[in-house]
Amino acid sequence: MKVIIVGGVAGGASCAARLRRLDEKAEIMMVERGPYVSYANCGLPYHVGGVIENESSLLVASETLFRERFAVDVRTGCEAIAISPKEKKVKLRSVKTGEVTEHAYDKLVLSPGAASIRPPLPGIDLPGIFQVRTVPDARQIKEWIEARRAGGRPMRAVVVGGGFIGLEMAENLVHLGVGVTLVEMAGQVLPPVDEEFARLVKDRLESHGVRLALGDGVAAFEEAGNGAIDVRTKSGKAHRGDLVILALGVRSDTALAKAAGLQIGERGGIRVDDQMSTSDPDIFAVGDAVEVRDFVTGEWSLVALAGPANRQGRIAADVIAGRNSRFRGTQGTAIVGLFGAAIAWTGVSEKTLKSLGDSDYEKIYIYPSSHAGYYPGARPIAMKVLYRKSDGRLLGAQAFGEDNVDKRISALAVALQMGATIHDLEEAELCYAPQFGSAKDPVNFAGMVAANAMSGDMPLIHWDAAKTGFLLDVREPGELAADPMPRALNIPVGQLRGRLGELPRDHAIHVFCRSGQRAYLAVRILLQHGFEARNISGGMLSYATVDQTVKQSD
Amino acid sequence: MKVIIVGGVAGGASCAARLRRLDEKAEIMMVERGPYVSYANCGLPYHVGGVIENESSLLVASETLFRERFAVDVRTGCEAIAISPKEKKVKLRSVKTGEVTEHAYDKLVLSPGAASIRPPLPGIDLPGIFQVRTVPDARQIKEWIEARRAGGRPMRAVVVGGGFIGLEMAENLVHLGVGVTLVEMAGQVLPPVDEEFARLVKDRLESHGVRLALGDGVAAFEEAGNGAIDVRTKSGKAHRGDLVILALGVRSDTALAKAAGLQIGERGGIRVDDQMSTSDPDIFAVGDAVEVRDFVTGEWSLVALAGPANRQGRIAADVIAGRNSRFRGTQGTAIVGLFGAAIAWTGVSEKTLKSLGDSDYEKIYIYPSSHAGYYPGARPIAMKVLYRKSDGRLLGAQAFGEDNVDKRISALAVALQMGATIHDLEEAELCYAPQFGSAKDPVNFAGMVAANAMSGDMPLIHWDAAKTGFLLDVREPGELAADPMPRALNIPVGQLRGRLGELPRDHAIHVFCRSGQRAYLAVRILLQHGFEARNISGGMLSYATVDQTVKQSD
Repeated sequence: MKVIIVGGVAGGASCAARLRRLDEKAEIMMVERGPYVSYANCGLPYHVGGVIENESSLLVASETLFRERFAVDVRTGCEAIAISPKEKKVKLRSVKTGEVTEHAYDKLVLSPGAASIRPPLPGIDLPGIFQVRTVPDARQIKEWIEARRAGGRPMRAVVVGGGFIGLEMAENLVHLGVGVTLVEMAGQVLPPVDEEFARLVKDRLESHGVRLALGDGVAAFEEAGNGAIDVRTKSGKAHRGDLVILALGVRSDTALAKAAGLQIGERGGIRVDDQMSTSDPDIFAVGDAVEVRDFVTGEWSLVALAGPANRQGRIAADVIAGRNSRFRGTQGTAIVGLFGAAIAWTGVSEKTLKSLGDSDYEKIYIYPSSHAGYYPGARPIAMKVLYRKSDGRLLGAQAFGEDNVDKRISALAVALQMGATIHDLEEAELCYAPQFGSAKDPVNFAGMVAANAMSGDMPLIHWDAAKTGFLLDVREPGELAADPMPRALNIPVGQLRGRLGELPRDHAIHVFCRSGQRAYLAVRILLQHGFEARNISGGMLSYATVDQTVKQSD
Repeated sequence: MKVIIVGGVAGGASCAARLRRLDEKAEIMMVERGPYVSYANCGLPYHVGGVIENESSLLVASETLFRERFAVDVRTGCEAIAISPKEKKVKLRSVKTGEVTEHAYDKLVLSPGAASIRPPLPGIDLPGIFQVRTVPDARQIKEWIEARRAGGRPMRAVVVGGGFIGLEMAENLVHLGVGVTLVEMAGQVLPPVDEEFARLVKDRLESHGVRLALGDGVAAFEEAGNGAIDVRTKSGKAHRGDLVILALGVRSDTALAKAAGLQIGERGGIRVDDQMSTSDPDIFAVGDAVEVRDFVTGEWSLVALAGPANRQGRIAADVIAGRNSRFRGTQGTAIVGLFGAAIAWTGVSEKTLKSLGDSDYEKIYIYPSSHAGYYPGARPIAMKVLYRKSDGRLLGAQAFGEDNVDKRISALAVALQMGATIHDLEEAELCYAPQFGSAKDPVNFAGMVAANAMSGDMPLIHWDAAKTGFLLDVREPGELAADPMPRALNIPVGQLRGRLGELPRDHAIHVFCRSGQRAYLAVRILLQHGFEARNISGGMLSYATVDQTVKQSD
């Protein structure tokens, strides 16, 4: 059996290694257009920033290793240019010599990845405009900065695009002492997360000196003298940089698949089944180029992440070797570091639910400490958890903070994968010692709050709806001075039982405190005394993010 | 309805707060023998060590808060001395005045906790022998050390007992500059973990200057002049200390329950059902004093942990308020910090399985990095994962390392809770960016290795059985020099296909490398060429721990 694998990074390399392990006799050829196989593209921004010092660290497994250890016929600098599915042949071209050869296959695996989006705007080809997709890309950026830094004058960069790579590049450029402006067409950074969490990210970036220009697309790149570039936006503004990083996302590289007549999906990726098989049963496709099912929504989606790419590569190898492996879809679990903080998420966002017209969900906001408050170093975590209103099933979660955000989202990701409900979160037994967590971990706490809301013990409301109603603030007077909410009646929770006469019986009472815990007790007291009461989820801490978002969109 | 809660720390305090939220009208009395309610006993060792500076930080919720906010009639310094279940009355005695009063209840909740074990050995009451269970205990230890430290001479302490508290106290005393000897009757520290992981803990303690005396019980405490104490062991040795910490574990405080005729379980705890109801339907019991079902084995167990105690308190409150909550048992998830490293575990250990005569399990050892190796700061994690041989269900996991051990065990704890199999671990989508994890996270990696073993693709063997067979070492020559294994034939994996003639066809070949990954490929090559081959799980890294354990027990 001869298997040709097109693309030698995450998905392709995983497929080659797995296939060799399963089938010692298969003839395996792996071709890669670039100079390296199996490199760590997730590390590129950190190599630019100097955190990962040596380029060689990024080369996870070398061509030699694949050849000697895995007996794979590796060809770098080699491009697949055409497939003849009927003849089961693929044409390869040497990038260096242009020489074209034709090779028969029994099974073909496409792992072409996705190319950085490079819009055909005026000036797009000016020197100093870079993308960050390959090792040579990173090398060019480093060399460009080093050459210009020699002069000693402060440097500026414009990062175009506020997704993962854009944010990671912004951080790493700041780390190098380069001033950064980030331009993003959408009204928020990080499209996968909800607006209020994108806002936390924005605040974090700004507090580390990144200038943000949101809601403004790029119109052109213009020479600005001294090798600088003006990034001209649609609104007419110009952002000047000594270099420009294009981080506009990626587009599945489907040219080869399309030309071969393979089915392309509605999102523009190669359509595969859950065994990574394309519309041609002898051709498989994996990685950033394929559409996969969203695990929560069941919708087709494009997910350019290394974890799923690796798993898909393994699955394609399994299937080729006669195993019955299946890809179960992706939750899109991800994390982005942000100057010592991180934002992480798993599952579906609220805006995705809204866009699908799905209203059978509730959300809660909580602001727990990363570990027991009495042990030094605890940091707040802002968490949003989405669950099915009808049955309590976990749908998604987002978290932002400086400490152990990844731990909570990883635990929630496993919970979501296993079909957990909020009641399962209540009962979860995570590692607890005071430096690592709390006896009621944020994951438990999320479950408890959601369960209280679901049982009706603690009716919830959110700031967008709450602020037009009767507001009851149950914080202590000292807290009001620091963080006032003038429209609210203040009755500290400890006094509430004695001051019920001050409250209306003909209106719903919207109760809040700092984070929601005292308001919960207040709501319980009010409900049991016959009032209609709701807890404003996340209290003043939510107001700081959610409500400002609400105000902006007013 | 009048509810009396005996014990005001984790379980009792949780119960009181929850019950008030559910029932505004209940009359709730909470009595606590000690001076404080709801204090953080998990923080006591760190307060002794000065990490948590102020004693007041340990007081999570004050008596006043319970009184004012939760309308709970709190009585500290008040002991329950007798229950009359038929009359539904409880006798309380003031610790200070000795005054006894009798109180009727509708429901009684026992949360008496567990007392530190204090064996009746000669000299046990000498001054300078302390336990670490309450805030006053911690205060006395601090005062004792400060008073003696004044002289400026080096201090020594003997910690008796190698469980959680013993280890945490050892670390904190070292942190204070006190030399520590830890004496433990068993042959290992940390009874809940398997011997090879206890050994990693032992090495960690020793490398930070703690002297360990294992397998030697205490026989007596003797005055040694200058206020020092000799801890005399059964083997006749004497370990001298300026203070002695008793950390011999705890014993459920069941005196009150026993005297009231409540059923006591086989492990010596109060027997309760899954609604925390004792053998008397009007009496509930929660926390360290009760026996609970082990979630994995279904056996009765005693678990003195804050998380389960809090949940049990909530459940008792729910049931008293007419809800149908149930406790699902405990996995015993736990973590102990060890001088910047940590050991954590969840579910069942191998020795528990063995003690139950359960042989339907397999184990794997892996040694992944805490995050992508190419990003600075990655640290190895030693992991052992136990799963059902017959169906792949996760049974338990143990992990040791300096970075993000808690994250992996927390994710595995959720997986175990949800009934995950090793195949679910393969597919888990955890947070990945190079500073946080790997595209194949240690959790995935555990699943993949286990799945390969289970499918027969990679038959496993462990060092205890492997070392008598034919050993094939597939490491590179350079590695052998640093870490030799003389009894093995060395063929680097890259040369294996060309040197198959050197291998026996009449023996099973036991293959190893550094951690098991190259050995996996070698096993695949050998199997496909008709050899009988097995991968020695965890390779040389397992040899360093597992085999030394094996040797010791020879």
